[in-house]
Amino acid sequence: MTLSARVPFVVPSFRLPRWVAGFLESRIGGRRLRSQEMRMELAIALARENGRRGSGGPFGAAVFERDTGRLVAVGVNVVVASGLSLAHAEMLALSFAQRARGHFDLGDPASPVHELVSSSEPCAMCFGAIPWSGVRRLVCGARARDAQAIGFDEGPKPARWVAALERRGIAVVRDVHRPEARAALRDYAGPLY
Amino acid sequence: MTLSARVPFVVPSFRLPRWVAGFLESRIGGRRLRSQEMRMELAIALARENGRRGSGGPFGAAVFERDTGRLVAVGVNVVVASGLSLAHAEMLALSFAQRARGHFDLGDPASPVHELVSSSEPCAMCFGAIPWSGVRRLVCGARARDAQAIGFDEGPKPARWVAALERRGIAVVRDVHRPEARAALRDYAGPLY
Repeated sequence: MTLSARVPFVVPSFRLPRWVAGFLESRIGGRRLRSQEMRMELAIALARENGRRGSGGPFGAAVFERDTGRLVAVGVNVVVASGLSLAHAEMLALSFAQRARGHFDLGDPASPVHELVSSSEPCAMCFGAIPWSGVRRLVCGARARDAQAIGFDEGPKPARWVAALERRGIAVVRDVHRPEARAALRDYAGPLY
Repeated sequence: MTLSARVPFVVPSFRLPRWVAGFLESRIGGRRLRSQEMRMELAIALARENGRRGSGGPFGAAVFERDTGRLVAVGVNVVVASGLSLAHAEMLALSFAQRARGHFDLGDPASPVHELVSSSEPCAMCFGAIPWSGVRRLVCGARARDAQAIGFDEGPKPARWVAALERRGIAVVRDVHRPEARAALRDYAGPLY
């Protein structure tokens, strides 16, 4: 057996669950979501639906054009389904947005300003991915400790992670619809928590 | 135009450059790489070749079975070619290894212990990805400041990142063939640095 038969060249890829397209169509159709609250409602709804359908953990994210509210891409957690530990909601939303724009840098000056809206604060990996993505704003619903309270691990994130992003020109808005975002986590966890 | 026509469902995927299969075949064939130094030589060679061929930045990584030296997967930086900012060498190596094992957790007790060998210390994103991957050891060549010295950014990584991994049961070995790893970076950067 040759080495190349043993070392995998299967291409890692990740796809959104089948329900996502219809869900987006019925939920927002062609509307632009002009407020941070409306955008967060979508991220939380994706998180809830992903957990409810069993397609992954209760986490949802979306990339928008910051100034128009045009939806560019969404993501949900598909770690188990994809078999890839990187397949967090934020990583999918950023990657789908980059594919939509045809470039790895969403901060390219020729394109609109992009923001990432996430139903929970990012874990250490997703936090570290944000500066490379080119988004200029991060909007979070639940706090990391809300996810920790139901058993999820945020990883070894710097204590001053918000300041670290802001120093790089990435605005951070926290606690948008936090009660609703936390409720989505708690409802997923069930009555034991 | 429907929403699903506008929100991308193109599947993000990333592939290794075409030269990698032949390179591995000619360089190591079926050998097991029993020492950390031999494993690092492969990671550095991948980094050099990736830069030399223009397929991406001068970074290489590989996942091995820690105790046997069996090569499981490799990665190189393909950010520009893939159009995905997550496509760092370590992320590819971990994802290919997970595809090879058929599971998102390389730390599954039923499988051999895995380690990640990287030509340079991980950036903030790859650092954050390591705990989710299931590898039990990280072996690094160049220091982050060696990559910074030629203009690469490591991102907002915690100051005590080695201790943070070790607290999670992931051993960290640094400076393996550091001079050779640093030379690969400097040769890529050229005489201006």
